[in-house]
Amino acid sequence: MTSTAVQARSIIAGAEGDIADVAAATTAAAEAFVSYRATTPEQRAAFLEAIADEIESDRDAIVEAAVAESSLPQGRIAGEVGRTTGQLRMFAAVVRRGDHLGVRIDPALPDRAPLPRADIRQRQIPLGPVAVFGASNFPLAFSTAGGDTASALAAGCPVVVKGHPAHPRTGNLVARAIGRAVAAHDLHAGTFSFLLAADPRRGVELGQDLVQDPRIKAVGFTGSRGGGLALVATAAARPEPIPVYAEMSSINPVVVLPGALAEGDVAALATAYVGSLTLGAGQFCTNPGLIFLPTGDAGDAFLAVTGAAVAETIGQPMLTPGIAEAYATGTATLRGTDGVRVVASGSEGGEHAPAPMVTEAPVTMLVQEDSAVASEVFGASGVVVRYDSVEELLPHLASLEGQLTATVHYAPADADAARALLPVLEDRVGRILFNGWPTGVEVGHAMVHGGPFPATSDSRTTSVGSLAIERFQRPVCYQDLPAELLPEAVRDDNPWGLARRVDGVLEDRA
Amino acid sequence: MTSTAVQARSIIAGAEGDIADVAAATTAAAEAFVSYRATTPEQRAAFLEAIADEIESDRDAIVEAAVAESSLPQGRIAGEVGRTTGQLRMFAAVVRRGDHLGVRIDPALPDRAPLPRADIRQRQIPLGPVAVFGASNFPLAFSTAGGDTASALAAGCPVVVKGHPAHPRTGNLVARAIGRAVAAHDLHAGTFSFLLAADPRRGVELGQDLVQDPRIKAVGFTGSRGGGLALVATAAARPEPIPVYAEMSSINPVVVLPGALAEGDVAALATAYVGSLTLGAGQFCTNPGLIFLPTGDAGDAFLAVTGAAVAETIGQPMLTPGIAEAYATGTATLRGTDGVRVVASGSEGGEHAPAPMVTEAPVTMLVQEDSAVASEVFGASGVVVRYDSVEELLPHLASLEGQLTATVHYAPADADAARALLPVLEDRVGRILFNGWPTGVEVGHAMVHGGPFPATSDSRTTSVGSLAIERFQRPVCYQDLPAELLPEAVRDDNPWGLARRVDGVLEDRA
Repeated sequence: MTSTAVQARSIIAGAEGDIADVAAATTAAAEAFVSYRATTPEQRAAFLEAIADEIESDRDAIVEAAVAESSLPQGRIAGEVGRTTGQLRMFAAVVRRGDHLGVRIDPALPDRAPLPRADIRQRQIPLGPVAVFGASNFPLAFSTAGGDTASALAAGCPVVVKGHPAHPRTGNLVARAIGRAVAAHDLHAGTFSFLLAADPRRGVELGQDLVQDPRIKAVGFTGSRGGGLALVATAAARPEPIPVYAEMSSINPVVVLPGALAEGDVAALATAYVGSLTLGAGQFCTNPGLIFLPTGDAGDAFLAVTGAAVAETIGQPMLTPGIAEAYATGTATLRGTDGVRVVASGSEGGEHAPAPMVTEAPVTMLVQEDSAVASEVFGASGVVVRYDSVEELLPHLASLEGQLTATVHYAPADADAARALLPVLEDRVGRILFNGWPTGVEVGHAMVHGGPFPATSDSRTTSVGSLAIERFQRPVCYQDLPAELLPEAVRDDNPWGLARRVDGVLEDRA
Repeated sequence: MTSTAVQARSIIAGAEGDIADVAAATTAAAEAFVSYRATTPEQRAAFLEAIADEIESDRDAIVEAAVAESSLPQGRIAGEVGRTTGQLRMFAAVVRRGDHLGVRIDPALPDRAPLPRADIRQRQIPLGPVAVFGASNFPLAFSTAGGDTASALAAGCPVVVKGHPAHPRTGNLVARAIGRAVAAHDLHAGTFSFLLAADPRRGVELGQDLVQDPRIKAVGFTGSRGGGLALVATAAARPEPIPVYAEMSSINPVVVLPGALAEGDVAALATAYVGSLTLGAGQFCTNPGLIFLPTGDAGDAFLAVTGAAVAETIGQPMLTPGIAEAYATGTATLRGTDGVRVVASGSEGGEHAPAPMVTEAPVTMLVQEDSAVASEVFGASGVVVRYDSVEELLPHLASLEGQLTATVHYAPADADAARALLPVLEDRVGRILFNGWPTGVEVGHAMVHGGPFPATSDSRTTSVGSLAIERFQRPVCYQDLPAELLPEAVRDDNPWGLARRVDGVLEDRA
C-alpha cells in the first residue's frame, strides 16, 4: 500500500486476515498523530460519537458475526454493543469536560525574593500511536473499538489494532465502522488501522513487530498471562521502552463471612455463586475462581447447595477450541492434585462446552509454589477453601498474587472481621465489592478494573472507566511561553472552560 | 539489629557506612506501612513539617557537611536547604488539601434499567515501601530528604534511602533529622531507614538488593543513565515487577531563533548562556549542553562573545573525582571527534576542577549512531550547532533522544518558527522554556521535571513539583461497601473536606 493510499483510506484488514504490514500502519499513525493530537475537544468528542453511531448503524451484522464467532448468546452480545457505544460516548463527554488535561498554572511572581518566579503552565499531552490487542472474551467491549481504543483515541493517540484471530469478521466490521467515522470527520486515515494475519504463527509475529515498532508509544492488551508478559518483555527491551497496560489473569477471591451466612439466605447465596461462576461459560476476567467459606454447619449447607447447583449445570460452548482445551487441562490438573476434592461437576454441553466444576482444597495449599489452587483456570472452575477464623485467613489472603477483584459477603455482625480484611484486600486487588459478585464491570468514572501484578502489568491505572484515558498521556510544562503561543488549554482566557489548578488550588471552570 | 530494636528506633547508617542490611530495613518498612498508610492527612502533613523543622534545627551542621562533601559553594547549599524544607512543606499542604486522593464517587442507581447500578467509590492508595537513591549533584534537595522521599512519604509510603557515597555525613545528618521526626510523631520506626555501605562495590550490591527485595514496591532514582538503567532492568526482572522513576540524562537543547538575535542584546544573551552552562561546574540535570544558533552575522557575533566568555572561565571543583574524570573523558572524546571544533575552553581550577569547554559541530553529526555530539557530558561542556532555517532544524530536533527541557530564545518576529517548533519539542521534552535558561527548576504545582526516555525511565510523571506524589499511588475502588466500613476519603459526609468527582463532575470541597 502506497503512502498516498494510506492518506486516502484507513488500513483495514479483511476478515481473511490479509493485512499484516506493521510499518505501513505505524507510519500512517505517526503521520496522523501530528494533526490528530491537535484536534479540539469538540472535534475529538464528535469523532468518538461518530464511531458509536457507525457501530450502531451496522449493529445487526456486527451482532450476527460476533455471536457466530464467539458462541456467546445473542443477548449478551447485544448488551456488549451497548456497552461499547456507551463507552465511546462516555469518553466523548470526558474529552468535552477536559479534566483529563490536568491543567496547572503557577503564575509568575516577578517580585518574589530572592528570585522571581517564572510563569509555569502544565497540561497533559498524548503519548503517540498506541497498539491495541483485543480480548477473546469480549469481541466488542474489550476489542477493536473497546475500552483501550476508545480511551487512546480520547487522549489524542492514533490506534493500531491487532485483530483477534478468534473473531476476524467482527473485528473487520467494527474496524470499518471506525474507518467510516475517520473519513466522515476528515481525520488523517492513519488515525486508525486494523491489522490481522491469517496464519496464527504470523499473528504472534505481527504482535511482536507492532510492539517493537519505534513509532508505537504505548500498548493496551487484554488476554492471557503468557501473552501479556511476552509483550511486556518486548516493550521493556526496546531502545526506547514504552508502557504496556496488560490486563492478564485473576482468580478473584470471595470471602464469605460467618455473619453473612448466619443472617442471610444461604441457599440463595450459594445459587448466586454458581450463577456468577458459570455465567458466560466462566469466561470473565472477574470470574470468582476462589471462595473462602467458614467451617461449620452454615458453610456445610452453602457447600451442599453449591454442589447440587453445579451438578445441574450444563457446559456452554467456550470461545475457541484452544480455550476449551486449556480449561480441560486446568481442571484435570486440579482433579489430579493431592488434597483437592471435587465437590461437584456439571455435564458437558457438547463440543468445546466442558462441564463446570467446583473443587475444595485446604487453605495451606494456597501458599505452595506454583499452587494449582491459586492459579487461574479460565472458565467455570471454582475452588472452595474452608477457614476457621478470619485471623487465620489474613496471611493467606496477603500471600495471594495481585487480583482484579475481591468480594466479601458480609452482615453487620462481621464488621470487625471486615475492618481487618479491608487493608489486606486493598493491598492485593483493584476493586473490592461487598454482597455482590465480581462478574459485571460497570463502565463509569469510579470503576477500577486493574490491580497489582499479575492481574495487570501496571497497577497504577484501570482499563475500564474514565480514568483509563490517563494511561495514554504525559505531562509537559511551559515556562514563560509568550501569550501568543500558549495552547488553548493553558491560556489565560480559558477558551475550553476547563477546571484548572492555579497555585495548587482547583478553580472551577470559567 | 533485632525486631524490637527496629520498633524502637529508625535504622540509620553512620557516615562511615556501617549499615547495609536491606532485609532489616525493608521488613521494618513493610511493618510500618500498615500503620503509616492509615495516618490522617493532618498527621502526615505534621510529620512532613516536623522533618523540615528538624532539618532547620540542624542547619549549620548540615550546610557544613554538604559544602565539605560536595565542593559546592556555601550559598548554593544554603539555598538547597531552603528548597528541601520548602518542598517538604509544599507536600504537607498537598496532603492537607487531599486532591491527590483522586476521589471519585458514582452513586448507586437502584432503578436503572435494564440493570441497577451499584455504588462505586474510588480513591488512590499508597503503593508500599519505596526505595530512594539520591543524587550526587543535589546532596539535599534530590537526596535523603529530597523530592522522592518527600513525595513518597506524602503519598503514605515508608521510605528506605540508599545513602549516596559522595556525601555520607550529610546523608546521616539529614537521616537523623527524619528519624527524630518519626520518633516525635510516634510513627513506626520503619517509616524511614537510611542504609549506606562503606565499600563502593558493596554499595552497588546494596542498591540491587534493595530493588530486588519483594517488600519494596517502587523506586525513585536520580543519577547516571547506566545506574538508572541497571535498576530499571532489576525491577523489571523481579517476580513482581515494580515501577522505577529514574531521572537519568539530558542535554537540554536550546534553540536561538533569528528574531531573538535581531531584536535582542546578543552579547548579553551569549554571556547568560555561558553563565548557565558553567553554573555549579555545569553539574545540573538541566545544563544546556546543546545550542542551535542561526548561521549569519548575528550568530557569529553570539559565538564570538561565547568564545571570549568561556575563555575567561575557571573550572570549579566537581562533586567527586570520578565525575571530574568522566568529564575529562567526555570532553576528550569531543575534541578527538572529526568535525568537532573547539570554540573555546577556560582554565583548569585545580584538582578535579576541569576547564569549561564549548565546541561546534555540524547539524548532521547529531543523527549519527552513538553521536558524541548528542551524548551528555556531565559538566560545563556545551556543543554549538549552526542552522540555516528552522525547517531544516525540525527533523534534527525530532530525532533527538528524550530530554528534560528544551529552551527557545524568541522574539515576536519568530512566531511562525516557534509554532512549528512547539509540537516537535513537546514530543521530545518535559519542560519547554522561553527566553530563559534551563538551570534552576522551580518546585511548584505546575513544574514538570521529567520527559521521554532516556531523560527519565517513565515519562508519565515528574520528579519535582506536587504532581510527583502521584508516582507512589494506585487507584482502588469499593463497590457497595457498607457505610460503616467506608474510608474517610470516600464517606458521604466527606470529613476531610475533599474535592471529589461525583458522576464524573468535580464538586468543590464540602
